[in-house]
Amino acid sequence: MLKIYDNPNKMEWSNLSKRPTKSLAEIETKVKPILLDVKTNGDKAIIALNKELDHFHSNDFIVSKAEIESAQSKISDSLQNAILQAKTNIEKFHIAQKEKFVPIETMEGVSCWRKSVAIEKVGLYIPGGTAPLFSTVLMLGIPAQIAGCKEIILCTPPNSNGDIHPAILFAAKICGINSIFKIGGAQAIAAMAYGTESVPKVFKIFGPGNQYVTAAKQLVLNDGISIDMPAGPSELLIIANETANAAFVASDLLSQAEHGEDSQVVLLCNSEMKTNEIIEALKGQLNDLPRKAVAEKAISNSKAIIFNDLANEGIKFSNFYAPEHLIIALDNPEQIADLVINAGSVFMGHLTPESAGDYASGTNHTLPTNGNATAFSGVSLDSFVKKITFQQISKIGLQAIGPIIEEMADAEMLSAHKNAVSIRLKTL
Amino acid sequence: MLKIYDNPNKMEWSNLSKRPTKSLAEIETKVKPILLDVKTNGDKAIIALNKELDHFHSNDFIVSKAEIESAQSKISDSLQNAILQAKTNIEKFHIAQKEKFVPIETMEGVSCWRKSVAIEKVGLYIPGGTAPLFSTVLMLGIPAQIAGCKEIILCTPPNSNGDIHPAILFAAKICGINSIFKIGGAQAIAAMAYGTESVPKVFKIFGPGNQYVTAAKQLVLNDGISIDMPAGPSELLIIANETANAAFVASDLLSQAEHGEDSQVVLLCNSEMKTNEIIEALKGQLNDLPRKAVAEKAISNSKAIIFNDLANEGIKFSNFYAPEHLIIALDNPEQIADLVINAGSVFMGHLTPESAGDYASGTNHTLPTNGNATAFSGVSLDSFVKKITFQQISKIGLQAIGPIIEEMADAEMLSAHKNAVSIRLKTL
Repeated sequence: MLKIYDNPNKMEWSNLSKRPTKSLAEIETKVKPILLDVKTNGDKAIIALNKELDHFHSNDFIVSKAEIESAQSKISDSLQNAILQAKTNIEKFHIAQKEKFVPIETMEGVSCWRKSVAIEKVGLYIPGGTAPLFSTVLMLGIPAQIAGCKEIILCTPPNSNGDIHPAILFAAKICGINSIFKIGGAQAIAAMAYGTESVPKVFKIFGPGNQYVTAAKQLVLNDGISIDMPAGPSELLIIANETANAAFVASDLLSQAEHGEDSQVVLLCNSEMKTNEIIEALKGQLNDLPRKAVAEKAISNSKAIIFNDLANEGIKFSNFYAPEHLIIALDNPEQIADLVINAGSVFMGHLTPESAGDYASGTNHTLPTNGNATAFSGVSLDSFVKKITFQQISKIGLQAIGPIIEEMADAEMLSAHKNAVSIRLKTL
Repeated sequence: MLKIYDNPNKMEWSNLSKRPTKSLAEIETKVKPILLDVKTNGDKAIIALNKELDHFHSNDFIVSKAEIESAQSKISDSLQNAILQAKTNIEKFHIAQKEKFVPIETMEGVSCWRKSVAIEKVGLYIPGGTAPLFSTVLMLGIPAQIAGCKEIILCTPPNSNGDIHPAILFAAKICGINSIFKIGGAQAIAAMAYGTESVPKVFKIFGPGNQYVTAAKQLVLNDGISIDMPAGPSELLIIANETANAAFVASDLLSQAEHGEDSQVVLLCNSEMKTNEIIEALKGQLNDLPRKAVAEKAISNSKAIIFNDLANEGIKFSNFYAPEHLIIALDNPEQIADLVINAGSVFMGHLTPESAGDYASGTNHTLPTNGNATAFSGVSLDSFVKKITFQQISKIGLQAIGPIIEEMADAEMLSAHKNAVSIRLKTL
């Protein structure tokens, strides 16, 4: 069960904020040969690795048009409708992130602006496993489509029959993704980073994955391929006071805990009584979960921390921890929300469970973990564009700004920089 | 001199776009022990490395208030004024990047918004060497200040007398940077990434540097420290036609070439005559440059490529090359500008030299190199903030969105995710 800490001293915060750290080094030695193999042998390597690692025995790993088209008929109408409504919501929120940048005249005749231009080729990775993560297809595919990325490809491992869950194919199709490959793990990252005969090379790779996928993404980053963000186990921190509904809070803690044994769950509460109430509710709900074993293990590594003053030490600890997801389970969440400095996504009040953001509220669920919320944002429309700056200077502008540039270039001892201005000024 | 290529076949583009690649592996073996030393021994390591690597023999590497205050009196009024005017321009352009994000109601009762929050602690690195790069202090310090970063620290190597160029200190002071450390190279990156007794640990590190600095930044990135972008030698591509002024174009090519022997310079022109004219002008201007040897070496590795149709193959090649800086030296640069997909910053027309953006027009000069403009943007206000998403759901909202979340969670076999909604819906 959750371990309880009572108003811990700041000296202890660092320990209380520790995530399970995995050494890249060991995994790297396994992943590097896979990357090299795919880089060198292309499709051949993919076919062999599909057999060896995913027990998928086929020379054909391209999802056919027919497979994509028939996916819709294999999922219920209610699931189709839910996915379509989620898509509408996610679209609304991400379309609002479009930037309208008006040119700025920084001096008379010196005009500067910037323009968002889609990254031409992006690759999305969707992990396999028991659960078909079609929600992640939406979270990555929708902003890619809004940005206007010309080539959006998707890799995901099939089951041993060579099938991909129809909900994944359906979600991909409605996001305009037509290039889908049955490839998983580090070999999928390698295929998208370096390209093969069948898989186009992309400029940026998105998506979650196991430690091999994560290591592969870090490694191709060193080769100049951009990635969405460093990944780690999912996390939730809840700030709750006496107004919180214990059953709601317990259900949120468990929804995080069921992700995996290494899921991180932290409860900050100003009341010992409420904390105990939440723990009791948690015990009750835990028994009914199909993924009880996983959730129980995650919960046993998790913490409940009493902070008498949530608006002071409580939020300070939350910012120190920098959670991926932050639920503020208070009657009036605004005051605490204003003080949030480090978090991926924030869920306000009693009726906003994390699962709303995971699926359908409209915000993105690809968020910084492992304390990276101190410096990283979640995936957004920004993640799929470059913001290119432009400038144009008129005669009057150059006459005004020219001498400034000359003076500065001179002081930096860059004569040719100065000369590029002087030679123009002389002709005006 | 520039090598001339005539309408090269697409098969050759990849070779023509190659940058000098440096193997990280070799440099890593030199940099890793430095990182470990600083991580383990803190200030002591810094003092020893300052002596060993920078011949700076002092136990004191913190720039004093008095040093910062007295810097202004050591630089001319005209340089001060130039720096202040550049600051005003850069501020205007970066303040305009502030995001006003209005909450979006994605469904009735489901409200989503995002908020830009400054990265609390950032570290800026300014390289040493012969030229005092105070312009880079402005380019990093100004957006950090506008973003509202609480702690902005700066590391830069001193000369062997222990002095930092007063223009660097002046630029830092007007950007509100008061924590300045006399540390260079990989040890500076390590100090900011891990913290020492004197140097605060930061969440994100910015700034250019030599190959050791670059390797150190890549390595601390694997430790979860964010960095501005992967770095490489500076680059310029110019698209010029018969309307271009050969002397202007030559001066721009040289302003790039004087940066270093590995600077990348590419000229695209639709006229062989104009190309030869530019090369002649270049030869003439080269002789007058103090940094002639450096520029000559860079130019000898550079290319002039004839493309008969600049608006077609020409811009396609430019996008393929993805230059850091792109000058469009045409009477009417707009048509080509509209077709730019991959570039860091674009300079339009005959009177907009790259050095304008390097110093004072207002755009940022920290830009993606080495083809990274395919997926990376230059430094902007965005680089100093995280965009945190928020959501709040009302009763009506949860009644509308709840069943959608339940349906999707069910299909992903995440029962606890579903339960977090069901348990709330039951109480409404």
